[in-house]
Amino acid sequence: MSDPSTNNFPTSVYAQRLADAQEGARKAGLNGLIIGTGAELAYLTGSWISTHERLTALVIPSEGTATIVLPAVDRGDLALSAIPGLDINVAGWVDGDNAHELAVDALGVSEFEALGIGSSITADHLIPIQNLVGSTCRMELAVQVLKELFVSKDEAEIEQLRGAGAAIDRVHAKVPELLQDGCTEAEVAAQLNDLILEEHSEVDFVIVGSAENGANPHHGFSDRVLRNGDIVVVDIGGTFGPGYHSDCTRTYIVGGNPDDADPEFAKFYQVLYEAQLAAVAHVRPGVTAESVDAVARDHIAAAGYGEYFIHRTGHGIGLSTHEEPFIMAGNSLVLEAGMAFSIEPGIYIEGIHGARIEDIVVVNEDGCETLNNQPKELR
Amino acid sequence: MSDPSTNNFPTSVYAQRLADAQEGARKAGLNGLIIGTGAELAYLTGSWISTHERLTALVIPSEGTATIVLPAVDRGDLALSAIPGLDINVAGWVDGDNAHELAVDALGVSEFEALGIGSSITADHLIPIQNLVGSTCRMELAVQVLKELFVSKDEAEIEQLRGAGAAIDRVHAKVPELLQDGCTEAEVAAQLNDLILEEHSEVDFVIVGSAENGANPHHGFSDRVLRNGDIVVVDIGGTFGPGYHSDCTRTYIVGGNPDDADPEFAKFYQVLYEAQLAAVAHVRPGVTAESVDAVARDHIAAAGYGEYFIHRTGHGIGLSTHEEPFIMAGNSLVLEAGMAFSIEPGIYIEGIHGARIEDIVVVNEDGCETLNNQPKELR
Repeated sequence: MSDPSTNNFPTSVYAQRLADAQEGARKAGLNGLIIGTGAELAYLTGSWISTHERLTALVIPSEGTATIVLPAVDRGDLALSAIPGLDINVAGWVDGDNAHELAVDALGVSEFEALGIGSSITADHLIPIQNLVGSTCRMELAVQVLKELFVSKDEAEIEQLRGAGAAIDRVHAKVPELLQDGCTEAEVAAQLNDLILEEHSEVDFVIVGSAENGANPHHGFSDRVLRNGDIVVVDIGGTFGPGYHSDCTRTYIVGGNPDDADPEFAKFYQVLYEAQLAAVAHVRPGVTAESVDAVARDHIAAAGYGEYFIHRTGHGIGLSTHEEPFIMAGNSLVLEAGMAFSIEPGIYIEGIHGARIEDIVVVNEDGCETLNNQPKELR
Repeated sequence: MSDPSTNNFPTSVYAQRLADAQEGARKAGLNGLIIGTGAELAYLTGSWISTHERLTALVIPSEGTATIVLPAVDRGDLALSAIPGLDINVAGWVDGDNAHELAVDALGVSEFEALGIGSSITADHLIPIQNLVGSTCRMELAVQVLKELFVSKDEAEIEQLRGAGAAIDRVHAKVPELLQDGCTEAEVAAQLNDLILEEHSEVDFVIVGSAENGANPHHGFSDRVLRNGDIVVVDIGGTFGPGYHSDCTRTYIVGGNPDDADPEFAKFYQVLYEAQLAAVAHVRPGVTAESVDAVARDHIAAAGYGEYFIHRTGHGIGLSTHEEPFIMAGNSLVLEAGMAFSIEPGIYIEGIHGARIEDIVVVNEDGCETLNNQPKELR
């Protein structure tokens, strides 16, 4: 694993994001933001620091300078981020200090009305923080009040996602030759692991689901031996550049001859193929996340396979593998240019086989750009 | 990675833990507990289910039957846990449902006074739950009110930790032959990875810090080439049995001849050795966690190396690699029989070399049992 933080954006990018976050917090009537480790911190500072159970938090008051609170012993790790070049105070704490008090003090106010909280902050930190600011302080999720900042990608981010998409496409291009009669899923997965690492800094996940294993969307890989004519779902992803993720699924047939497929499979694969294309074609600014899900779902249901499409149509992607916008029933979020997410309907016949087709798309003014471009036909 | 949940305890163990948790919640005046995924859920149910950003929570009301709330599509994963044999309702949710409302409803009351919250629940779930129960409902950490349950190990758990300790000891026994003049840290780490996997279901971490890299407690491994006489800190751990962790550090000298070490190193290594033994000897029921830290720290400080011991003395271990009791300044927790934790003082001379000695110990009536038993002398 190489360290993705060595590929950070220029410092000015993070300075602008911090300024935007502060302005967003002020406009939302918050006293400030408290952001935990992970994607949101990486977005704002380029830091992927992890201090396990010990509090690290970026505190952005609605006015004044931001502070990063972290274990003093971990200060050196900030050198990998943009923080040394940014106007951010560093508050190191040692055992015996009250780290939560340091974070709350960094907000620079004594009366608390409302705070924006990073999604990743765990209860063992959030509850002590709440006890300090008092129960009358309203807690909101930072991502909810700063959606425009956190959920839409700018051109530099989209360029990284394009790079990630092309990287995983190059891996998928080699999948047909790996799927040989007599190989196990695990052997294929090991080769995919190596191929993903050639194109990315880290492997995020490898799914090789053949025959009945393809009917379980949570299957990883097993010692099942591939046989000619087996249907195989291959869903793979890795980490790219400053931490952007790839994620792409294609469905294959061992031996590469679609005529070997069961006629019932061929029928529903065609339905799935059309559903995926229809959902992609529906994406444009102004439509809701749930409407994209509905397009895929309605097409599959109309063909009689509705009960076999057992998960949401997609998830946002960026510095996290799963983030807003979630493409699912109940999410009335209106899509805007710059939002990036997967469109990955699937049909799963328990005990027999399954199929899924997944691309990452980015909303643009005209509709969307598809970042994965390997063939979707069964092959 | 084999699945650790296949080595679960008998169902009756989990039934008793659930009953104890419910009784503890009632005694603490809570309406119930909401526990997230991870170690606490595994402790109570044997389930290591992970549903990423989608809510999975075990809800234990102070009276009545517990409920596990999870994405309906993930219900099948419960088969790996003890849940099918336990008196637990399963509430599957699909997109469009309000999962947080399902969790709150499972508490079975309409007025909320106080809840015990699992440490791992993230803000994106805790804030919606709080909004549902109202700001007058007091939130406490489940681990704080159920310390006796979560922080002390029973005999079956200790037996697993003994197994984990013996497993990592067998790996350490082979380290001297791996540390050859001309090898890189990364080559040694790759061999350790394989050896840990032979003894565990998963590798948790591998640190091979030679010479100046040993002075950074966060170092993993690098392409640095080992040379005879180099000091090397080797800190390794894995997952064992139903999910218990090993964690053990020894400090070595390449070539195996302690007389090759710099005299200044030999001097402080002796101090460290004595400090580690003194801290272990201090452990017994009734002393505080911070007093164990103080014993190690005072011994090192008295010899003039206080400023080079830059981290806490230890951390609890069990189904998490880091948990209560934290052996550090400010933690007045009184030790009880059954608590398991590391004792791992270190001395780090930046840019030159470092040393750390770490054992897992379990408090018993007479003092403590040391679960790691490889030699601590430089070798």
